[in-house]
Amino acid sequence: MLNTTMQSLGAAPSAIRTLFAYGAERKKVIGADKVFDYSIGNPSVPAPEEVGSALVELGQADPVAIHAYTQAAGDPDIRQRIADSLNRQHGTSYDASNLYLTCGAAAAISISLKAIIEPGDEIIVISPYFPEYRVWIETHGARIVEVPARLDNFEIDLPALEAAITAHTKAVIINTPNNPVGVVYSLENLQGLASVLTRKSEQNGRPIFLIADEPYRELVYGGREVPWVPSIYDNTIVCYSWSKCLSLPGERIGYVLVPPTATEHVALTQAVSGAGRALGFICAPALFQRIIERCVDLPADIATYERNRQILCDILDEFGYTYIEPQGAFYLWVKALEDDAQAFSDKAKEHELLLVPSDSFGVGGWVRLGYCIAEETIRNSREAFGALKRDYE
Amino acid sequence: MLNTTMQSLGAAPSAIRTLFAYGAERKKVIGADKVFDYSIGNPSVPAPEEVGSALVELGQADPVAIHAYTQAAGDPDIRQRIADSLNRQHGTSYDASNLYLTCGAAAAISISLKAIIEPGDEIIVISPYFPEYRVWIETHGARIVEVPARLDNFEIDLPALEAAITAHTKAVIINTPNNPVGVVYSLENLQGLASVLTRKSEQNGRPIFLIADEPYRELVYGGREVPWVPSIYDNTIVCYSWSKCLSLPGERIGYVLVPPTATEHVALTQAVSGAGRALGFICAPALFQRIIERCVDLPADIATYERNRQILCDILDEFGYTYIEPQGAFYLWVKALEDDAQAFSDKAKEHELLLVPSDSFGVGGWVRLGYCIAEETIRNSREAFGALKRDYE
Repeated sequence: MLNTTMQSLGAAPSAIRTLFAYGAERKKVIGADKVFDYSIGNPSVPAPEEVGSALVELGQADPVAIHAYTQAAGDPDIRQRIADSLNRQHGTSYDASNLYLTCGAAAAISISLKAIIEPGDEIIVISPYFPEYRVWIETHGARIVEVPARLDNFEIDLPALEAAITAHTKAVIINTPNNPVGVVYSLENLQGLASVLTRKSEQNGRPIFLIADEPYRELVYGGREVPWVPSIYDNTIVCYSWSKCLSLPGERIGYVLVPPTATEHVALTQAVSGAGRALGFICAPALFQRIIERCVDLPADIATYERNRQILCDILDEFGYTYIEPQGAFYLWVKALEDDAQAFSDKAKEHELLLVPSDSFGVGGWVRLGYCIAEETIRNSREAFGALKRDYE
Repeated sequence: MLNTTMQSLGAAPSAIRTLFAYGAERKKVIGADKVFDYSIGNPSVPAPEEVGSALVELGQADPVAIHAYTQAAGDPDIRQRIADSLNRQHGTSYDASNLYLTCGAAAAISISLKAIIEPGDEIIVISPYFPEYRVWIETHGARIVEVPARLDNFEIDLPALEAAITAHTKAVIINTPNNPVGVVYSLENLQGLASVLTRKSEQNGRPIFLIADEPYRELVYGGREVPWVPSIYDNTIVCYSWSKCLSLPGERIGYVLVPPTATEHVALTQAVSGAGRALGFICAPALFQRIIERCVDLPADIATYERNRQILCDILDEFGYTYIEPQGAFYLWVKALEDDAQAFSDKAKEHELLLVPSDSFGVGGWVRLGYCIAEETIRNSREAFGALKRDYE
């Protein structure tokens, strides 16, 4: 009587959400300061002051103007303002028509996939990958194809990717800076990817799209540059969110960028707009469109995450854990101390450490630690990491 | 290379949006006061003062707490607050677990349909109906079945509905107070509907769901009561939005209510949650969840719409137009002066009157006038209605 696939998706929330919910309950029982919750990417850095002052200002403005429907793609002047900001950063020449504002990056990716997928299509992801990619790909009728990242540096394994591409490949999804590993793909790696996709698109006689999921773009360490993907590969669709850089995860504001370099970009823009309509999105929240108008050029506060990262790395080093040193985002990818990541995560729970097992990211044997949490929580978790290590000695 | 259905949906926006966009351009050319734009349901009544003061207050609150992810279904305390409000109004006993907050009613309907539709299903709508119903029904894989409303009072034609139900009928969508006609279904009509659906559900051996799309619930005239549909039919799913009653259309905040009376309501709740996840909704905008927490019990300001309605009815009476006197919502359903509603709408445009032709609502020969606009615009449109009438004499 129901759609059983939907029921299953609702009955078994993602491993991340499950652990997060466990943590919320556990904190009620033993106290919030006793649970070391590394489960979710909920930024600990406060939104910039400008967000609060914009709310105060908008609360005194004409409500009819502020809260009205905008165009489905978002207010055109605000989209132009965002395009101008991108153009200043990347030397591009986008305008309002290239942007479709969304309820965050999740909506942006779901809408982009819906816009391009036809029956029989395949979508490639680089594993480990954000688990919801599978949900959206399968919901919109395509088959997910997993290509493991290079084991040495977790960049894209280009020969493996090329071997996985078939005549049915419609798109590749990448995420850099990467959740869950924290790697930032190098310019060289992305140029190699562009070369493979260009060659294979020609062979297929139709474009293979590159969906660049970029919510962590501004969160990079050591002065690294994140290459601007549409300037490397023409058929890139950028899916962005201000959730992480402005610490607004609950507010659902982001965009799809269809660059004018994309093949038939007008038709693609129409398909994005049609997909948004078909799925039940009317417009991105109007008030937060106006907040972004005021805050689009603010820098992200990465100092806190950089400090957290160092403290956590020091703890992991002290006890001899193996991990990938993150170049960006706010996740650490740590080798589980047994093959079964779920069993390791369960063992960690006994020490009140909430670590997401890697299985739902498409690989075994690791856990993900989100370090966008209070510095004190990280410091206080030191003994728990020591005790967990001793369990395996 | 793209999903051609999505491209078509994006290339040909709804008739309402097309006329609205025409109006925006036309106002730039001849001045906003010269265009009589009855195209869209964008409330002219300002949001209550309490919304503005809540924004000012929240702009000074802890941003980490305010803007964080909530549970996918929404903050549980806020959901309980909404349930309490419903319980006070309707004598029900809902709790937080019965509510799933959404990005407005559009998302609520799309998610509800996705939650229940399986291949081969049919969804019944009462024509004239909100055009996007067709888009969501077909997107999620069902067939739309149109049952014309009774011609005398635009209530549900129960014998016609019963005849249209098959073994494949999964749900019926109703909208009361109704867009576009303005009718409020009587208790008797709804009880008759419940009786038909109960009998047919038994015959089919599975429930036929009733999706009650209720964004206009509070907007009724002459002290009318809008019956609470879940108290009449157990397998009702309520899709609600605060867009109209609190004048927040751009902010995208509403809910799906799965009442505990629904068959297998726990599984249905899971399917709703799974559908939200599958389509790319993460949570309803967090800040507006908090606004609703503060404003859920505020009355809607219907005096303005009641006055607008009277002024417009007087104008239509003066020139001898035929129309359905609205009992609720803020739309007037007016008989076109020729069989071809699109041609009539085009003729009206020559007098700067923007009236939505009825074809996209599934019937010919009428136009919809949204009177949620400035009173002065309605008054100033008098001569244009006179001139349009004379064109047909």
